[in-house]
Amino acid sequence: MFKITLGENLFLHLIEMQHAQELHSVVDASRGHLRRWLPWVDAMKTVADFQPVIHAWLQQYADGRGFQAGIKKDGVLVGVIGLHDIDWMNRRTSLGYWLTEAYTGRGIMTKATQAVLAIVFNDYQLNRVQIQCGVTNYESQAIPKRLGFLFEGVVRDGEWLYDHYHDLVQYSLLREEWLRYISSGGR
Amino acid sequence: MFKITLGENLFLHLIEMQHAQELHSVVDASRGHLRRWLPWVDAMKTVADFQPVIHAWLQQYADGRGFQAGIKKDGVLVGVIGLHDIDWMNRRTSLGYWLTEAYTGRGIMTKATQAVLAIVFNDYQLNRVQIQCGVTNYESQAIPKRLGFLFEGVVRDGEWLYDHYHDLVQYSLLREEWLRYISSGGR
Amino acid sequence: MFKITLGENLFLHLIEMQHAQELHSVVDASRGHLRRWLPWVDAMKTVADFQPVIHAWLQQYADGRGFQAGIKKDGVLVGVIGLHDIDWMNRRTSLGYWLTEAYTGRGIMTKATQAVLAIVFNDYQLNRVQIQCGVTNYESQAIPKRLGFLFEGVVRDGEWLYDHYHDLVQYSLLREEWLRYISSGGR
Amino acid sequence: MFKITLGENLFLHLIEMQHAQELHSVVDASRGHLRRWLPWVDAMKTVADFQPVIHAWLQQYADGRGFQAGIKKDGVLVGVIGLHDIDWMNRRTSLGYWLTEAYTGRGIMTKATQAVLAIVFNDYQLNRVQIQCGVTNYESQAIPKRLGFLFEGVVRDGEWLYDHYHDLVQYSLLREEWLRYISSGGR
Amino acid sequence: MFKITLGENLFLHLIEMQHAQELHSVVDASRGHLRRWLPWVDAMKTVADFQPVIHAWLQQYADGRGFQAGIKKDGVLVGVIGLHDIDWMNRRTSLGYWLTEAYTGRGIMTKATQAVLAIVFNDYQLNRVQIQCGVTNYESQAIPKRLGFLFEGVVRDGEWLYDHYHDLVQYSLLREEWLRYISSGGR
Amino acid sequence: MFKITLGENLFLHLIEMQHAQELHSVVDASRGHLRRWLPWVDAMKTVADFQPVIHAWLQQYADGRGFQAGIKKDGVLVGVIGLHDIDWMNRRTSLGYWLTEAYTGRGIMTKATQAVLAIVFNDYQLNRVQIQCGVTNYESQAIPKRLGFLFEGVVRDGEWLYDHYHDLVQYSLLREEWLRYISSGGR
Repeated sequence: MFKITLGENLFLHLIEMQHAQELHSVVDASRGHLRRWLPWVDAMKTVADFQPVIHAWLQQYADGRGFQAGIKKDGVLVGVIGLHDIDWMNRRTSLGYWLTEAYTGRGIMTKATQAVLAIVFNDYQLNRVQIQCGVTNYESQAIPKRLGFLFEGVVRDGEWLYDHYHDLVQYSLLREEWLRYISSGGR
Repeated sequence: MFKITLGENLFLHLIEMQHAQELHSVVDASRGHLRRWLPWVDAMKTVADFQPVIHAWLQQYADGRGFQAGIKKDGVLVGVIGLHDIDWMNRRTSLGYWLTEAYTGRGIMTKATQAVLAIVFNDYQLNRVQIQCGVTNYESQAIPKRLGFLFEGVVRDGEWLYDHYHDLVQYSLLREEWLRYISSGGR
Repeated sequence: MFKITLGENLFLHLIEMQHAQELHSVVDASRGHLRRWLPWVDAMKTVADFQPVIHAWLQQYADGRGFQAGIKKDGVLVGVIGLHDIDWMNRRTSLGYWLTEAYTGRGIMTKATQAVLAIVFNDYQLNRVQIQCGVTNYESQAIPKRLGFLFEGVVRDGEWLYDHYHDLVQYSLLREEWLRYISSGGR
Repeated sequence: MFKITLGENLFLHLIEMQHAQELHSVVDASRGHLRRWLPWVDAMKTVADFQPVIHAWLQQYADGRGFQAGIKKDGVLVGVIGLHDIDWMNRRTSLGYWLTEAYTGRGIMTKATQAVLAIVFNDYQLNRVQIQCGVTNYESQAIPKRLGFLFEGVVRDGEWLYDHYHDLVQYSLLREEWLRYISSGGR
Repeated sequence: MFKITLGENLFLHLIEMQHAQELHSVVDASRGHLRRWLPWVDAMKTVADFQPVIHAWLQQYADGRGFQAGIKKDGVLVGVIGLHDIDWMNRRTSLGYWLTEAYTGRGIMTKATQAVLAIVFNDYQLNRVQIQCGVTNYESQAIPKRLGFLFEGVVRDGEWLYDHYHDLVQYSLLREEWLRYISSGGR
Repeated sequence: MFKITLGENLFLHLIEMQHAQELHSVVDASRGHLRRWLPWVDAMKTVADFQPVIHAWLQQYADGRGFQAGIKKDGVLVGVIGLHDIDWMNRRTSLGYWLTEAYTGRGIMTKATQAVLAIVFNDYQLNRVQIQCGVTNYESQAIPKRLGFLFEGVVRDGEWLYDHYHDLVQYSLLREEWLRYISSGGR
C-alpha cells in the first residue's frame, strides 16, 4: 500500500475501496465523539454508504483535486486527513481532518498535518492552505495554531450541523510562512 | 427574454448563447477598467472564448448551482452579477459582480445586488451570502457595506491577479439580517 | 425570479427545481381536464416525478434547445408553455402549452404564445414555429388560428394517448408572416 | 457482414467505421446530383468528415433509435437508407434515403424501402412511418406513392438547403395500411 | 433484420433489444447444460437481466470493439457467438460461443465460427483470433481444432466458475494461417 | 508523496500529473533501450504526450482497476511498474514494467515486482497474476522466473512492435504458489 511514514508505526495511506469496512467500523465506534463537529456522521450508517464516498475521493485524487488519506497507528485506522479540492488558478487548498477519541492528545494529527503540508507546498507547489474549525472546537484549532497558521476571521453560520448552523474560525498558512517555519526547525 | 426588472430601463437577464457577441464587446471596451480586479479578463480575447463560459453558466443554472445575469441599462449590457455555486448542504452561496466604468456610481449595482439577494433568500431560501472583494477595491466593497453585510476577515493571498496574489476582504449577510434589513425598509 | 411580463399580474417564468411542488399541485388538481389531451398526466403522480422532468427542462434550456415556462396569474401557477427542442440547422421549433380549466377563455394563452413567439423570432432568430393539436382539440387550435398560423395538414396517429392513437393537426408560422402580423398590429 | 438481401446482388448492410472511405468516394463522385436535395453534402469533404457521422449512426443503432444502412448493388455502394430516430412513446419513425444518379430508375430504392418497412413494422412493431421529400423532388416522392403511403400536407420552409428554405411534402404509412398492402401482394 | 446466412434456415443476426425475451427463454431452458462452462448463467434470471447486457453488446458494436450475434436455426434462437473486444493496436481479438444442448453435434457452430472468422479477417483485417475453452470442455475445443487453430498453452485458474477456478486451454489462428486454410478449401 | 519503500533509497510511488516532465525526460534519454520491447515509446514525444496517459493511469487507480507506479532510486525516476487492469470477476491481473538501461542488473525490478505482488495478493486478494514478455526478451523473463512464476505458453503474434508482430511468452503465479514462495523465504 502506498504510504507516508510519519513515525514509529504511524503512517498515512490513500483510502481505497477495500478500506470501506474498516472505515465504517472506526466511524461507527466513535459516532458520539465525531458527530460533535462532523456533519456527515449520521448519514454514514453502513459499509455501503462509504463506497460511493471512497470512489468520489479516488476520483478527486485522479483529477488532481486533492486526496483523502487514512491515518494508521499500530495497524489501526484512527482517523482521516485530506484536502477539500485544490484551486489551481489561485494555488490554494483547504485542509480537513478527524481522529477517533482514543488517539487524540498524542501529537498524531500534528504529524499528519505536517506531512500533508509538505505535499501541498513541495509536491503541488501551492501558495496557500486554509483550515476551518468550529468556533468552540478548541481541539481542532490547536493544530493550525501549533503549525504557524494565522487567524483570518470567523465565517458566520458557515456550516449546518444536524440541527443548527455554527460559526467557523478560519486559519491560513502561506507558502513563504511555511518555508520560514520549516527552516526554523518547525518551531 | 426572462428578466428581473430593477427600475426604469434597468433589468437583469439570464445570459444565453446569443449574448456572446455583446458580452465580448462590453468586456473588450472596458479591459483596462475590468482587469484591475478581475483575473479572467486577459484570457477572454474573442467571442469564441465566451461561448464555453456561457455554456458553463447555463449548466450551472440547470444544475441548480446558481446563475449569471447580464445587467442591462437603456438597452445596453453594462455588467454581470451572479452566484459562485450554491452549497445546499450548508445553504450558503457567494456573490460576484462587475460593471463597466461608464455606469459606475449610479446605484445600478446596489439595485442588482438587492434583486439577487431576493432570489437567494426568497426563492432559494438560503441562509448565508458572502461577498469577497480585493482589499483595496473600495468601489466593490461599498456594495456589501451599503446592504448591511458584516465584515468577517481578510483572506490572505486569496486570488492570483495576473502577476501577483492579493488579499480579499470577506463580507457576509445572514438570512435573519436580510429579513430585518428588508422589514426596516432597506436602510 | 426571471420573468416575462404579459400584463397585469400575469407573467411567464422559467421553471426551476423549487417549483416542483407547485407544478405537481396544479397538475394534480386538474388531472381530468389535462389528460384529455396530454399523454404524460397519468405518469406524473408525485412531486418526485416532476423533479427529473424539471431537470431535463433546465438542461434543455442550458443546451440552447428551448425552454419550459410557468404561466403565473395573480400569483398562481395556471399552466406551462414551452418549445419542444430547436432545430438550429433548419431554424425551426415546435410550441406546446396547457392551461388549467379555471383559467381558460381569458386570453391568457394567447398572450403567453405571443411572448414566446417574440423570443423565437427576435431572440433566437428562428424561421419557423409549428404547433400540433389533437384533431378535435378545438380549444388548443384556437391559439394558432388567432395568431396567424397556417394549417399544414394532419399527422395521422401522431400521438399515443393512454389507450389509442389520435390524429394531430399541424399549424405553422414563418418569420416573415410573424413580422407582417406584428407590423399590422397583431390583428 | 450483417446484411438484408433484397435480390440478385443487391443487399443492405449496417454502415460501420471501415466503410468511411467507400462512403466518401460515392458521395464525392455524386456531389452535384446529391446536393440538389441533401443539405449535408457540402459539409462532408473528406473521409475524416464521415467518421464521426458513422459513429453517431452506430450509436443511434446501439441506443435503439434506428439505423443507417448502405445499399450495395453488384458489390458497389450505391446509396443509403435509414430511420431518423424512433419515437417509442408514440411508436413512430421517419424514413430517409438517397441513391447515386447512375442507379436510379431501377427499382432499387423501392426494394430497399420495403425491406426497411418490414423491420419497422415486424421487428420494431411500430405504428407509423413518415417520409418527407422536397416539394419538387418527384423522384423521391415516387417511393412513398408507390408503396401506399398517404399524403398528409406540406411542411412550409421545412429544411434549409445551403442558401434557401424549401417546402417538404409529408407522406405517412400506418401499420394497418402496411399489413393490408402486404397481404394484398404489395400492389 | 441484418443477417449472415450460413446455410439452409441457418443464420447469424446482431442481437437487439427486442430479442431479450427470446434470449432469456433459450438460456432459461438450457441452464443445466450452459452453466457447466459459462460463468454468467446463474446471474441471468429474468428478461430484465438481459436488457443491460444487450445494450452493452450494442454499445460494443457501435464502438467498433466487436459484436454478439444470435444463431438462428429454423426460426429458433439456438446460441450466441461473438468477439470479446478488439485490440486494434495489436489487431487481435478473442472469440466466444455457446449452443443449446439440442443443437450440438450438427456442425452449426463450425459454420458460425467460419462466418465470424471471415468478418474478423476480411472486414476488420485483424491479424489474430484466440479461443479459450475449459481444459476439459472437449466439445468447445473441437471448434478451434477443426478450423486450423493452434494450441498455445494453458491459462491456469483462468476463470471463476461459480465455486471454483478452472484452467483454460488457449488456441489461436493467425491471418496467414486462415488465408492458407481458406485457399486450401477449408480442410 | 505516497510511497512503498523497497530498500535503501529505493521506493515506488503513484505517478501523478506533476511527474509528467520527469517521466518524459527518463523515457527520452532511454528511447533506444526502451523501444526494443515497448510499443508506445515512439508515440510519446513531448511532455504533453504523457499528460493524458498519466490521467488515464490515475483514473484506472480511482476505478480500482490497478495502478502505475514510478520506481525511484537515489531520487531519480528509473522505471515504471504497474498492473494492466484487474479482472475482479476472475480475480486476475497482469503485470508490466520497464527500467532504464543504467539501472538494470541491480535487482531493482525484482524488489519492485515483489512489492506489487504483495499488493495484488494481500491488499486486493487476487488469485492470479500474469506476466507477458517478448519471446527473446530474456532480461524481462528473468523476473517471473526468479519469483516462482510458471511458464504457460507462447502468445503468437501477441503484440505489434512498430513494424512487425512478435510472440509473447506468458508466465503466471497463483495465490497459493505465492503464499508458499513467501513462507519459504522467497527462494
